[in-house]
Amino acid sequence: MTERRQAISVPLAVAKVTGSVRALPPESVPVEQAYGRILAENLYADADIPSFDRSAFDGYALAAKDTESACPDRPLEFEIVERIAAGQVGTKAVGPFQAVQIMTGAPLPPGCDAVVMREWTQEYVREGKAWVVLKRAMRVRDNVSLRGEEAKQGDLLVGKGTVIHPGIAAVLASLGMTEAKIGRRPVVGVMATGSELLQPGEPVRPGRIRNSNAAMLAAQIERAGGECRYYGQVPDELEPHLATYRRMLAECDLIVSTGGVSVGDYDLMPRVYATLGAALLFDKVTMRPGSVTTAAQLDGKLLLGLSGNPSACYVGFELFARPAIRLMQGAEAPFAPLIEGELLADYPKPNPFTRFVRARIVYRDGKVGGVPVGFDKSSSLTSLAEANGFIVLPGGSRGYKSGDRVKLMLVDDRDGAEWPWGDDGDG
Amino acid sequence: MTERRQAISVPLAVAKVTGSVRALPPESVPVEQAYGRILAENLYADADIPSFDRSAFDGYALAAKDTESACPDRPLEFEIVERIAAGQVGTKAVGPFQAVQIMTGAPLPPGCDAVVMREWTQEYVREGKAWVVLKRAMRVRDNVSLRGEEAKQGDLLVGKGTVIHPGIAAVLASLGMTEAKIGRRPVVGVMATGSELLQPGEPVRPGRIRNSNAAMLAAQIERAGGECRYYGQVPDELEPHLATYRRMLAECDLIVSTGGVSVGDYDLMPRVYATLGAALLFDKVTMRPGSVTTAAQLDGKLLLGLSGNPSACYVGFELFARPAIRLMQGAEAPFAPLIEGELLADYPKPNPFTRFVRARIVYRDGKVGGVPVGFDKSSSLTSLAEANGFIVLPGGSRGYKSGDRVKLMLVDDRDGAEWPWGDDGDG
Repeated sequence: MTERRQAISVPLAVAKVTGSVRALPPESVPVEQAYGRILAENLYADADIPSFDRSAFDGYALAAKDTESACPDRPLEFEIVERIAAGQVGTKAVGPFQAVQIMTGAPLPPGCDAVVMREWTQEYVREGKAWVVLKRAMRVRDNVSLRGEEAKQGDLLVGKGTVIHPGIAAVLASLGMTEAKIGRRPVVGVMATGSELLQPGEPVRPGRIRNSNAAMLAAQIERAGGECRYYGQVPDELEPHLATYRRMLAECDLIVSTGGVSVGDYDLMPRVYATLGAALLFDKVTMRPGSVTTAAQLDGKLLLGLSGNPSACYVGFELFARPAIRLMQGAEAPFAPLIEGELLADYPKPNPFTRFVRARIVYRDGKVGGVPVGFDKSSSLTSLAEANGFIVLPGGSRGYKSGDRVKLMLVDDRDGAEWPWGDDGDG
Repeated sequence: MTERRQAISVPLAVAKVTGSVRALPPESVPVEQAYGRILAENLYADADIPSFDRSAFDGYALAAKDTESACPDRPLEFEIVERIAAGQVGTKAVGPFQAVQIMTGAPLPPGCDAVVMREWTQEYVREGKAWVVLKRAMRVRDNVSLRGEEAKQGDLLVGKGTVIHPGIAAVLASLGMTEAKIGRRPVVGVMATGSELLQPGEPVRPGRIRNSNAAMLAAQIERAGGECRYYGQVPDELEPHLATYRRMLAECDLIVSTGGVSVGDYDLMPRVYATLGAALLFDKVTMRPGSVTTAAQLDGKLLLGLSGNPSACYVGFELFARPAIRLMQGAEAPFAPLIEGELLADYPKPNPFTRFVRARIVYRDGKVGGVPVGFDKSSSLTSLAEANGFIVLPGGSRGYKSGDRVKLMLVDDRDGAEWPWGDDGDG
């Protein structure tokens, strides 16, 4: 017979899980392979950025004070004394009414404090000399990037724990780094349990279903930044479970099982955890789907027992495994963002538990909303094909109407968010 | 001297680029490695989903008509004639006021048309028989998932050209597929040009900058789904460029160069393209930054000449290379979404060209907005570290104010969007 379980709130369950994991030791990868990984050190400017005063455009460097009287009716002529390509440094200082042709990014020659964009000028040769004509006045620093204006030497450019996107890859390279120090990707062991699961290739027959959770979890683990190692389908019996768990504990950083957690007589996970000596963190959460999600800890490793229902498994992974995997990589913002948005359907039936409704996040007229997708049962799989987020409906005595302001969980986000559940431990 | 270039609009330039590429032949990968790849075939239901009437919860299956008179004051007793685990099929038909204990996902036994959730019942043994007590009436189909209610055999579940996210991986597995047919990732050759670029490891000195674009493009290519092959930094001279281009044309599906496209005398790309015999698609676009972006076609391959300025290079890649790479993988929605949102800063200065302002996309009170990040010059690199999108400010004679409704480009999006530029070819 089943013992009674004590359900805890989603935020409390998330806090218990994330409180039980630690960042793995960092490793190094070549900068060009660092995309999507998590930076394991602060990046400081090694020099002023830019490191010299430089031209922001292709044009002519000159002294702004010489241009004061230039206007369309009375254009001014400047003698071109040198032409500097990007990567070169000028050799001449300009005198009054002289200019240097300059390329974007080239250092400003001595005596110059402004650049005229090439498009605003005309150039010609007269008496064997090259001249440029200017029809408007320039101000000091026009079209010039000043040394240090982006950042001073020693400034923090990117903080530790940030996901490396293309702009951060550029910063790494601009600091002369060829290797990036990043958080190691945790190896996530996955095991599917359930005698109802067909083996791959077996034809469908009554009572049996194909195992879709393993492939789904492999993709979710990849999206979260982990490395999936699959240990196969294990029959609903204690011994094979213990053997598989012992292998996973030896070989993985985090262990995720799907199935075997329902409240029936055939529920295995509690016995497996008890036999292994794992410390239970929780075995029920006030959420739908996925209320019978279980979490435990053993030898400093987190064991997550997710539901066998595809949607419940999906939600459980995103709520608990995702931040754990990101924290193990050293992320400072390990959570999926939880933003405010509009509910775009009626949910009249109240639910005592927080409901996670599979949804498509949509943007309309400057507003963000969530449209429930497909078929809303926790066993439904096809609806997951369209979902890129969840509508989060807090439990309570009332239902919800289309247009209500609700929270939306952006599971497809790349950068992550800090703790999104507010300070209400029972929220 | 420079020939005059004819600038074309962003939508027209995007259309020219995307019109010049074709999907590469598909390939197969194991389903568990398919995450993020693009599906190259339609997925149809191979059977009804679910394939049999099944219980949606752990509980007791029975005939709803027997429960009509059940209420808290007058509970009804049902004899438990069998217990079916998930994966098993019942052997007994229920008679009047009999029930079968059933697990989530198990097939409904003959004679049953509803399931009572276990939480609503109590079970006991009397006179050597097991009984379950019910205090409320059930309706036909309560807590039952009917055969085919999610999808009928032959229904389209996921369309060709869709990015494979975890829910689609689950659908693939549920169809019994162990391999997924997907679009091949194009090999994208990258070359950096510019004599101002330091070699890796070389110390910073006046006039010279570190090459940050190569690492940035490697990350952008990875995000877009391509495979980056880097051909190094090539000096600003014709011969080394021609040699590198010939190698890239032989080895790559798409070619991206950065630098060498500015309007100055040192501009190489037009000569390189002309010597190779490439057909120019455009060499100027009415956008900032990145107006001197160049695109050409040779031997059915697209050559993109992006600016050497980091931000201009970044924008040019996302506008032109990203959809090209996605289309080559067979994507139906190859573009970054362009959504409506709020401008969260003033841009008083009008610009004749469409301006792409590096921005952080933020959500506040159900609305989406774009906050310009860091330092808005096209040479600015550190600002790219914070950006996850662009604010798109159409060119014209007026400036923009905080609060204005503008378009936001979501470069971090995973699923993609269909043509986002409207039907205004010159928009």
